[in-house]
Amino acid sequence: MGKGLTKRTENYSEWYNEIVKRADLAENSPVRGCMVIKPYGFAIWEKMQRALDDMFKATGHQNAYFPLFVPKSFLEKEEEHAEGFAKECAVVTHYRLKSNPEGKGLIVDSNAKLEEELIVRPTSETVIWNTFKGWIQSWRDLPLLINQWANVVRWEMRTRLFLRTSEFLWQEGHTAHATEHEAIEETERMLEVYADFVENWMALPVVQGIKTPSERFAGAEETYCIEALMQDGKALQAGTSHFLGQNFSKSFDVKFVGKDNKLEYPWATSWGVSTRLMGALIMAHSDDNGLVLPPKLAPIQVVIVPIFRKEEDLVKILEKLAPIIGELKSLGVSVKLDDDDKYKPGYKFAEYELKGVPVRLGIGMRDLENGTIEIARRDTLTKETRPIDGIAKYITGLLDEIQGAIYDKALNFREDNTFTVETWDEFKTQIEKGGFVMAHWDGTDETEEKIKQETKATIRCIPMNSIEMAGKCVYSGKESGKRVVFAKAY
Amino acid sequence: MGKGLTKRTENYSEWYNEIVKRADLAENSPVRGCMVIKPYGFAIWEKMQRALDDMFKATGHQNAYFPLFVPKSFLEKEEEHAEGFAKECAVVTHYRLKSNPEGKGLIVDSNAKLEEELIVRPTSETVIWNTFKGWIQSWRDLPLLINQWANVVRWEMRTRLFLRTSEFLWQEGHTAHATEHEAIEETERMLEVYADFVENWMALPVVQGIKTPSERFAGAEETYCIEALMQDGKALQAGTSHFLGQNFSKSFDVKFVGKDNKLEYPWATSWGVSTRLMGALIMAHSDDNGLVLPPKLAPIQVVIVPIFRKEEDLVKILEKLAPIIGELKSLGVSVKLDDDDKYKPGYKFAEYELKGVPVRLGIGMRDLENGTIEIARRDTLTKETRPIDGIAKYITGLLDEIQGAIYDKALNFREDNTFTVETWDEFKTQIEKGGFVMAHWDGTDETEEKIKQETKATIRCIPMNSIEMAGKCVYSGKESGKRVVFAKAY
Repeated sequence: MGKGLTKRTENYSEWYNEIVKRADLAENSPVRGCMVIKPYGFAIWEKMQRALDDMFKATGHQNAYFPLFVPKSFLEKEEEHAEGFAKECAVVTHYRLKSNPEGKGLIVDSNAKLEEELIVRPTSETVIWNTFKGWIQSWRDLPLLINQWANVVRWEMRTRLFLRTSEFLWQEGHTAHATEHEAIEETERMLEVYADFVENWMALPVVQGIKTPSERFAGAEETYCIEALMQDGKALQAGTSHFLGQNFSKSFDVKFVGKDNKLEYPWATSWGVSTRLMGALIMAHSDDNGLVLPPKLAPIQVVIVPIFRKEEDLVKILEKLAPIIGELKSLGVSVKLDDDDKYKPGYKFAEYELKGVPVRLGIGMRDLENGTIEIARRDTLTKETRPIDGIAKYITGLLDEIQGAIYDKALNFREDNTFTVETWDEFKTQIEKGGFVMAHWDGTDETEEKIKQETKATIRCIPMNSIEMAGKCVYSGKESGKRVVFAKAY
Repeated sequence: MGKGLTKRTENYSEWYNEIVKRADLAENSPVRGCMVIKPYGFAIWEKMQRALDDMFKATGHQNAYFPLFVPKSFLEKEEEHAEGFAKECAVVTHYRLKSNPEGKGLIVDSNAKLEEELIVRPTSETVIWNTFKGWIQSWRDLPLLINQWANVVRWEMRTRLFLRTSEFLWQEGHTAHATEHEAIEETERMLEVYADFVENWMALPVVQGIKTPSERFAGAEETYCIEALMQDGKALQAGTSHFLGQNFSKSFDVKFVGKDNKLEYPWATSWGVSTRLMGALIMAHSDDNGLVLPPKLAPIQVVIVPIFRKEEDLVKILEKLAPIIGELKSLGVSVKLDDDDKYKPGYKFAEYELKGVPVRLGIGMRDLENGTIEIARRDTLTKETRPIDGIAKYITGLLDEIQGAIYDKALNFREDNTFTVETWDEFKTQIEKGGFVMAHWDGTDETEEKIKQETKATIRCIPMNSIEMAGKCVYSGKESGKRVVFAKAY
């Protein structure tokens, strides 16, 4: 394993596909565009879910569950939203099959046609705002801070495991507020939560910013996003947080009595991240030997491989290891002891390398005599031999160090691949090479569209917290107040 | 709140509906047969999920995720399975909507018709066994122990919140084994896990048994189940575990090379529990004042209501409470302090009673002077005043005591409502009154069906571990080797 993996420089896309499959993360299913998330991949997703869920709860949100199906009439209520999602949705038209009277198998029972078609949710704003109508009467009911973990379906013609699939798993936050100000604060707070998660758990630096009008979520007044840079120089949108204004409260006629006793429409936000983050995680850190996982999201943080010939040697090694494993577990480290004798140590080493286990410990009879253990780091592929005494504490420190090192590496990569350009020629040359290209833009849809047509680059975001500085649009030469981030993107 | 709830003796069904709604557990949605699980209800479900998930992992299972959609041809592959599920499934026939050219709104785009219809999964045996084909080659790949948390859809004409809905949440375990013996062991192990969970977390005693052939899961060789008794004397099936034989491995042509180098079909199991457990939890323990929750599943285990007139009194009370709240939290107790001044204490008391919070603490200025606190138990509706010193430890003990008391009450109820009958007249009279009726049955589908037609009672299960003792069938008078459990059921 690991050996024979396509190199990133040869074919980045193929390299990605091979890691997803050979590290047992996911596979395509015969159901068009739908993936199977395999146990090892799902274990990483579960760690992501747990961390995010804790963060949502810490910021006052509660989980709930809403129907899978959206009646067609709901989708129609918010015009832009309908426009955005109608073209890629799975439509349920019947509720029964029957035996084929003309032969074998099952056919759709035409007597079981639904009066109104149901759409498999592509997102739940409409169903949730229809429900909020019953939950919101007074300012006392606000803010209403809800999150849902769910599967959603957006029909895709060209799919890629984790990055773009017809069905994917995600969370969608939906909140209602008494004032516009509070809703914008919430939108920004959740973007901050996402950035915190992606940087501190996924070890991946992000640029926080605002989408241009043409890239906004269908039905939003403003879409905030976090953008990360992959190793091939393409950008990946890692999460979005939308300020929805009063669009959905008006479409679904949701009103509340304010403190001043007047009827008002609440202000809304929605925000989501999905299994797409798995794609980002894989592409950002992995190398030509396979997956590299930041310790905080690794299902197995430490694997221990005893090296032995005779059964009695294994017994001695395991005796020495037992208290160390116990101590690691009590320190909250997830450890796997692989004393299976079906495979040789070399094979196991390659396997765990491929699967991105952050730390591998090897111990044989010589180590036992010397009181040592061999430690291999997945991120740097370095090895060292250390005294076995105090090894558990050393490893917890090492895991923290690896988490930081993976982040630093990704940050250095992004810094090395962020370019400031002034002219259209510079722009075109740099976009072709990849990376984040910081350039002035005149703020018009027209220029944005032309740049996209000519270079396939899009404006990833208008960065927040960046210094305003006047300049000339790289394409039109018109006035611009701020640089924006251009890149080709996933 | 609480006041004005329909009494169980008046109308049990209405009482149930009112608790579900007024305790904020769930509500109907405008999407036919689909429910909205509200935050408080979902928090209980999350506790159930966490406990079950830990138990699955402790028994060696791994989570994974499989597609929402089942191609029609997959469903057709296992004949009995197809028969069982075809009549109640949501069918996706198209993948796009378009603007209505003749007016407003959206219509199904007839150019986007699927070549093969997709069924929204009613259960995932077919999709998962199709996937297992790629995962199983050798005996080394077995046992394969997989679980999935997912939503499923079975179209229902008459629905009831939690108990029967078109969409519901559940987990489905799917395992593959090298031998029949191992698969049967797994089937029984998971039944044991379910019984453990329902008895020790939900505080609800169950009878473990085997379904009669007519009540088996479509495609199973044997269905094991756990059955619980509700307060109205009706039974509720709380979980099932199926031994699937080689039916699915044969239908999907999954084979493995055994240790003896011969190709064999693996043996399968599947097992599931769903949000239906929420219905069981509510109906088993609650009373005319509202929900009663066993502490292990209560989102809020202890609520503290300060009783004060002046702001400065509240400050003093909170000062006294702060270390107690800290201590309770450090002991793993989930505590809510409700010092909101929008509502009066009496209103709050009724609210938390309705929501089934196991322990309520009340503290006012008099208590502060006396160094006391008032403790109210939800299950017994009793109150006591105790010294505030050492209260946190006392409460952790009390929560254990309440968990046990709720179980004992349910066990006593079941024992008082389990009847042994010998004659058909006795049978009919007792079934009409309700409860588990233990009677001899001749083992034929015919008798089972006639009893069902005449009394609406079904055989809930053939109990395991019960003493074999010869007798005469209560209906036909023929020989019988063992009593079975009859009841009317949800």
